Amino acid sequence: MKIIAYANGDDIALGVVTCATHFVDVADVAPDLPQDLIAILEREDGLAYLREATADVRGNRALSDVTLKPFLARPNAIWALALNFKSHIAETGLQTNPAYPHLFLRTAASFVGAGEPILAPRPSLARAFDYEGELAVVIGKSGRYVSVEEALDYVAGYTCLNEGSVREYQMHNRQFGLGKNFEASGAYGPWLMTADEFGDPARHSVLTRINGVVRQRAPLDDMLLGVAQVVSYLSEGYCLRPGDLIAMGTPGALKPQPDDVEGQDLSRQFGPFPTPGLVHMRPGDLVEVEIDGLGVLRNPVIADA
Amino acid sequence: MKIIAYANGDDIALGVVTCATHFVDVADVAPDLPQDLIAILEREDGLAYLREATADVRGNRALSDVTLKPFLARPNAIWALALNFKSHIAETGLQTNPAYPHLFLRTAASFVGAGEPILAPRPSLARAFDYEGELAVVIGKSGRYVSVEEALDYVAGYTCLNEGSVREYQMHNRQFGLGKNFEASGAYGPWLMTADEFGDPARHSVLTRINGVVRQRAPLDDMLLGVAQVVSYLSEGYCLRPGDLIAMGTPGALKPQPDDVEGQDLSRQFGPFPTPGLVHMRPGDLVEVEIDGLGVLRNPVIADA
Repeated sequence: MKIIAYANGDDIALGVVTCATHFVDVADVAPDLPQDLIAILEREDGLAYLREATADVRGNRALSDVTLKPFLARPNAIWALALNFKSHIAETGLQTNPAYPHLFLRTAASFVGAGEPILAPRPSLARAFDYEGELAVVIGKSGRYVSVEEALDYVAGYTCLNEGSVREYQMHNRQFGLGKNFEASGAYGPWLMTADEFGDPARHSVLTRINGVVRQRAPLDDMLLGVAQVVSYLSEGYCLRPGDLIAMGTPGALKPQPDDVEGQDLSRQFGPFPTPGLVHMRPGDLVEVEIDGLGVLRNPVIADA
Repeated sequence: MKIIAYANGDDIALGVVTCATHFVDVADVAPDLPQDLIAILEREDGLAYLREATADVRGNRALSDVTLKPFLARPNAIWALALNFKSHIAETGLQTNPAYPHLFLRTAASFVGAGEPILAPRPSLARAFDYEGELAVVIGKSGRYVSVEEALDYVAGYTCLNEGSVREYQMHNRQFGLGKNFEASGAYGPWLMTADEFGDPARHSVLTRINGVVRQRAPLDDMLLGVAQVVSYLSEGYCLRPGDLIAMGTPGALKPQPDDVEGQDLSRQFGPFPTPGLVHMRPGDLVEVEIDGLGVLRNPVIADA
C-alpha cells in the first residue's frame, strides 16, 4: 500500500495510490479513520483497516491533479544518520564510531513533499547547499527495548528522502544544528510504501539525479548500520512513537564522467569537502531521489525569498 | 502572566496562575480560545486576549491539586545550546565557535512537566545521567531574517528547563543524538512566564539544586550568546514558529564545599569530564532548577521501568 498526503484547500488530506496514475481519498473509502497518518498509525488496526477498505477500489482521482505534501504532521522525532555509507565516510575523511549510529534530528519545517519546491538559501548566507539521497523509515507502533530481531516489526514503511544540507551552517560548530534545518531544505515522499510491499530494505538501492545526471547510487546493503540495528538502538533510549522517521544516511558521490565538466570542476564547490562528482543544488535545478521498487521523489529547487 | 498546562483526565488543559497557590482554567475564562498554547500563540491577539480575560479574575483552583504537564505539545523545534556558559566550557575542556550558537535538537518525548518524575536510565545502559539547569525561551510569533535588535519581540516568554543528558550515549558519536533524547530525561516549567513579566533575561540568574544542595549557579548575563542573538541566528535559516523552544545552555558546576563528600568524590562519576561538584541524577533524587523572578522547576528522579 502507498499512502500519500496532499493539499486540499488549506487542509491536508490522505489518499491511497491504486495504480501508476490514480488514488482514492481516505475520507471517501474509510470516513471513520482520522485524516492524519500518525493518528491512523496510532490505532492498532489502522493500516490493516485502510488496506481492507481500499483493497478492490479503483482510484477516481489523478495524482497529477494534486500537490503532494509531507505525510507526517510534526512527528515526535525526525532522526537522520550521518556517515552511514562507507563511500560517504571516505569522501569526507571524517570518523564515525561503527558500533553506534551517528544520529541527529531535523524539524518538520525543514521538509516539503514530492513535487514541492526545495528552497536554496540566499547566496549571501550559504552556497554549499547539498542533496543527500536516502532511504527513510517510518515507525508504525510504540516500542521500547526492541531487539534487532524484532525491530522490523515496528516499521510501518519506507519512503525516499532528500536530506538537504547547508554546509556552511552545518560547520559553524560540531553539532550540525541549523545547517540541517533550513526552511524547506529537504523533502520526503512521494508516499509511504508499507513494509509488506517494500520488503527487505537491503535488497534495494538508492540514487540521486540532478538535472537528469546520476550523482549518487548505492545498494542499501552498503550501510554501516542497517534499519533493524538503528531502530533497536533508538528504542534503548525512548519509546518509539508511530510516525517517528529515520533517514538512513547518504552514499558518496559517483565519479564524474569524462564529459562531465560541472562534476569535475572543484572550483565551483563551496563546501568543506570538495569532491569530484558533487554539485550543489541551485535555483532552477531538478533533484530526484529514487529507490527501486518504491518510487521517485522529484523536487524543483528555487531561491528562498 | 504565567500559563500552565495540566492533566485533565486523559487531556491536557491550560490555566493561568493568579497567585502563589491558585489558577483559573482557560476554558472557564476564555472558552473561545483553543486548549493548546501553540494554537493560542498562533493567533495574533492570543496572549493579549488571554491576559484581558484573566486580568481581574481570582483563581478558583489550587495548583497543588493538579499535575503540571509540558505546556507545548510537539512544537516544531526544541533547540538547545551546547557550551554557552564560560564556566561549562572550562570544565569540559571542549571548544566552541564563539561567533555562532552551538545548537542541537531535542524531541518533545524527552521532556516532562514540573513535578513529574524524570526517568534515570537503566544502570546497565548508562550511569552518567546529568542535570543541566537552563533558561528556556518560547517563540511567540512567526519570523524570518529577524535582526538582533528586533529579536526579543518574537519571544512569548520564558521558563526553567532541565536539559537532562545521558553522557554515555551522547559520546557514542560526535552528534549528541540519542544521549540528549532519552525518554522523560528532561523537564521544563513550571509555567510559561510571558516576556513582559520576566523582563530582561540578562538580569536574572539560574541555579540547580540536587537534594537541596546548590550544584550550579550563574547570572544569565554570563552566556556567550544571548537570547536575542540566538533568536536572530535561527531566523536566518527558517521561519520561527510559535511554540519553538530554545534552551539557552547550562553553567558549570559549583566547587564543592569542604564537607561535601559526594561532590568531591570523582570516583562516583561515570561521565567523560569528571568534575568537582558534579553529581549524577539517580533514582530517589529531587532536582530543582530555579530562575529568580520566574519560579522553580522541581522533579523527582525515578528509575526507568
